[in-house]
Amino acid sequence: MDKKIAELHIYRESLALLTDLYQLTMVYGYWKAGIAERQAVFHLNFRKWPFKGGFAIAAGLESAVGFIQSLKFSESDLSYLGTLKDNRGEPLFEKAFLDFLASFSFSCDVDAMEEGSLVFPYEPFLRVRGPIWQAQLLESALLNLINFQTLIATKAARICLSAHPDPVVEFGMRRAQGIDGAIAASRAAFIGGCESTSDVIAGKLFGIPVRGTHAHSWVMAFDEEKVAFETFANIMPANCVMLIDTYDSIQGAKRAVEVALSLKEKGFELSGVRLDSGDLARLSIEIRKILDNAGFYKAEIMASNELDEYLIQDLKQQGAKISIWGVGTSLVTGRGQSALDGVYKLSAIQDEKGQWQPKLKLSEQTAKVTNPGILQVRRFFDGTFYTGDVVYDELDQIKDPSKGIDHFDPNHQRDFTGVEHEDLLKPIFRKGKLVYDFPELPLIRSRAIQELQRLPSSMERFTNPQPYFSGLEKHLYQKKLKIIAEMRKK
Amino acid sequence: MDKKIAELHIYRESLALLTDLYQLTMVYGYWKAGIAERQAVFHLNFRKWPFKGGFAIAAGLESAVGFIQSLKFSESDLSYLGTLKDNRGEPLFEKAFLDFLASFSFSCDVDAMEEGSLVFPYEPFLRVRGPIWQAQLLESALLNLINFQTLIATKAARICLSAHPDPVVEFGMRRAQGIDGAIAASRAAFIGGCESTSDVIAGKLFGIPVRGTHAHSWVMAFDEEKVAFETFANIMPANCVMLIDTYDSIQGAKRAVEVALSLKEKGFELSGVRLDSGDLARLSIEIRKILDNAGFYKAEIMASNELDEYLIQDLKQQGAKISIWGVGTSLVTGRGQSALDGVYKLSAIQDEKGQWQPKLKLSEQTAKVTNPGILQVRRFFDGTFYTGDVVYDELDQIKDPSKGIDHFDPNHQRDFTGVEHEDLLKPIFRKGKLVYDFPELPLIRSRAIQELQRLPSSMERFTNPQPYFSGLEKHLYQKKLKIIAEMRKK
Repeated sequence: MDKKIAELHIYRESLALLTDLYQLTMVYGYWKAGIAERQAVFHLNFRKWPFKGGFAIAAGLESAVGFIQSLKFSESDLSYLGTLKDNRGEPLFEKAFLDFLASFSFSCDVDAMEEGSLVFPYEPFLRVRGPIWQAQLLESALLNLINFQTLIATKAARICLSAHPDPVVEFGMRRAQGIDGAIAASRAAFIGGCESTSDVIAGKLFGIPVRGTHAHSWVMAFDEEKVAFETFANIMPANCVMLIDTYDSIQGAKRAVEVALSLKEKGFELSGVRLDSGDLARLSIEIRKILDNAGFYKAEIMASNELDEYLIQDLKQQGAKISIWGVGTSLVTGRGQSALDGVYKLSAIQDEKGQWQPKLKLSEQTAKVTNPGILQVRRFFDGTFYTGDVVYDELDQIKDPSKGIDHFDPNHQRDFTGVEHEDLLKPIFRKGKLVYDFPELPLIRSRAIQELQRLPSSMERFTNPQPYFSGLEKHLYQKKLKIIAEMRKK
Repeated sequence: MDKKIAELHIYRESLALLTDLYQLTMVYGYWKAGIAERQAVFHLNFRKWPFKGGFAIAAGLESAVGFIQSLKFSESDLSYLGTLKDNRGEPLFEKAFLDFLASFSFSCDVDAMEEGSLVFPYEPFLRVRGPIWQAQLLESALLNLINFQTLIATKAARICLSAHPDPVVEFGMRRAQGIDGAIAASRAAFIGGCESTSDVIAGKLFGIPVRGTHAHSWVMAFDEEKVAFETFANIMPANCVMLIDTYDSIQGAKRAVEVALSLKEKGFELSGVRLDSGDLARLSIEIRKILDNAGFYKAEIMASNELDEYLIQDLKQQGAKISIWGVGTSLVTGRGQSALDGVYKLSAIQDEKGQWQPKLKLSEQTAKVTNPGILQVRRFFDGTFYTGDVVYDELDQIKDPSKGIDHFDPNHQRDFTGVEHEDLLKPIFRKGKLVYDFPELPLIRSRAIQELQRLPSSMERFTNPQPYFSGLEKHLYQKKLKIIAEMRKK
């Protein structure tokens, strides 16, 4: 195998083949069947409440847009596709089809919830409308990019809620699921409320504040821990956070204080110490005393070690004196739920006469039945809190889509007539042209924080949260039942 | 924010900043302290048995080598680092240091276990020896690349063991943790034994066989399921796998049979049907009958729907008639354990006189105490099975490192004197030059399969597997105890 291959897959030029093969065989089929240009609508939504919690934070849209804007089949992509064979040994795709792919020029409309928005199960948070072959082609990449960042922004929000008002620093790169598992997670974690990251490339790409001082290897590179601390303090006097648990955390804290005292003589205040192992509750309390007794009241105690929202909550309840929380693995891998179960489903297609036909997928599993139409999400707001969401079909041309029926409980209905509201799917592309102006990342982060303030805290609990109301608009609900009944009859 | 940024983070040129900030502040410190060029040794190992199982499969080395070979700080990397400020608002790094980084030219020795090898907790499976600043700089990226692929190769091996002798197709892209979460997972899943992937870009990059036919949207794009099947069969007569659960799986199977019968008249055999929801055990048995009754004995039944090693085992015990297993989310995200807990620790450094000083990190948690020295792993083989591994220190110059003491149980000792053996860390780089010839990916996959045959099946159980013997060579064990005692005295 060419030695360049290893490089190629970490440094990459074309991502047009970031797709599942069946997307290409279906596009081939649409093209062969002469229906490739037919207008269709797909929606992206997830089905399970992530982490058994009460909310999710939408993220990943900007990455998805980056993918769409650059989508182009390179020469090498097309020549690879030309090598694929069917079970007879014949080419899987005709040459003329590869030329068709090469002609790809995005012409769809895309509408989506803005990043940092609250989003709930069964709500479309991205909608693509355009020629079926183009909309189909995007499926795998859109799901990949949006599922993951939404998962991590949500996990970050949970962790930040548990640490509040203390800051959370994300440092998961080493355990992340691959390079984008790190980079995209740093971006999503910042959206979800993290204060900073250790991930330098995310700092460069997204302007996220970066943090970091030293590891155990720094201490071990010297004969004595104290010499390691002194050397570090001399080199980084203004950013001196010493990692004190290489040998013994309490001894380490005492040595850090000695070094901090001489640092003080040079006019620098100790930034803090970091603990990465052991009994964080007990040790942080002892270390706080050591720091305070030496007059370092402002020195931070930063802690890490397989933390997550539950452990942080627990440590706080034990009175741990930790003021900065470093969270890695469980944040960037979404421990507890390693994937958001987002899907991307066809919901309407035009017939030969240009009439929209609503579409839905049946299933033995009710949760897998999809919603038909060209959907929009209306969110109602009582001035303090969001009170509920209603998904409606723009094809129904309802004047006031304010009456919602819970997705799975017909007895749970809500009437939001007269309540302040906003439609959440915003225009991103129109006929293939980007029409959305992306906010700066700190603004997306602020939006997420504000969104969480508009959700009652009972819905932000980690265990058995009160469910937020989200349902289908009355007419849509009835239409869906009717379609299901007709389909079952067949 | 520049609209190009979204693209930049998915299409990337330089990964030199794929690191945690503290690696750079430590390198800065080594450089300022005048010890940057001092020779040091770091080892990469993990500590917990992944998925509570009895083995792991090493993977990710080639990606790591790709990273190392291309490591170079670009102009934009250096100018970004130049913008970082300390807490006083002064530049975090001196200009001369950025020039030093720009001079990076890899000169380390790297030794590693070959991809596809069995690897066990506490065994170094990658070793870097060279100037401390260079070895330090690699830490975050090496851990990222190797932790993840090793995790997924291991998960894949478990899933393939449960499906054996049926093939497993990986199709996790849509739920993977970002783009590399998909691409690297496809590579690792193939190493771990998967037969193919749906991931087209992985097919292009690594030559992995790709598979895929159609999704629900294909069926929904037509007015009738049967028309969808007919159209597909006409277009892909030789690769016709029909997805039958869009509306009703049993009806779908019957329609697939009708279409397959007319396909047969044209000289094509039905490849199979696919089920993606519902009661897979019951449905597959009914559908097998429908296929057999129509004479399609060879048609495959492929099933998917949140499968993992436990569900596959369970379905097989229920007599499910599934012959190809499609596994996505739980495979590519390592469900059950979203990260391998690999670490990269300093274990020796030369003093001013060029004498090697062994190093270890103490911890309140015994599991976090590291091993000192320049380590090698010797694996013993009785001709049928691997019988145990002994980690020894090359600095000890033991003639016959065959006596091992379990990492955590001193009463568990083994003497492998006279047993056939192999040293597992192979030369990859010498003084920065690549000296290893990478095998083709199918050969790596074959190695993994052979390795698993050399492990007793009691060690491959998913629940309470018999532990494989892995320990420290006797002299190393005693040296470690002595160093710990001396350090604790201080």
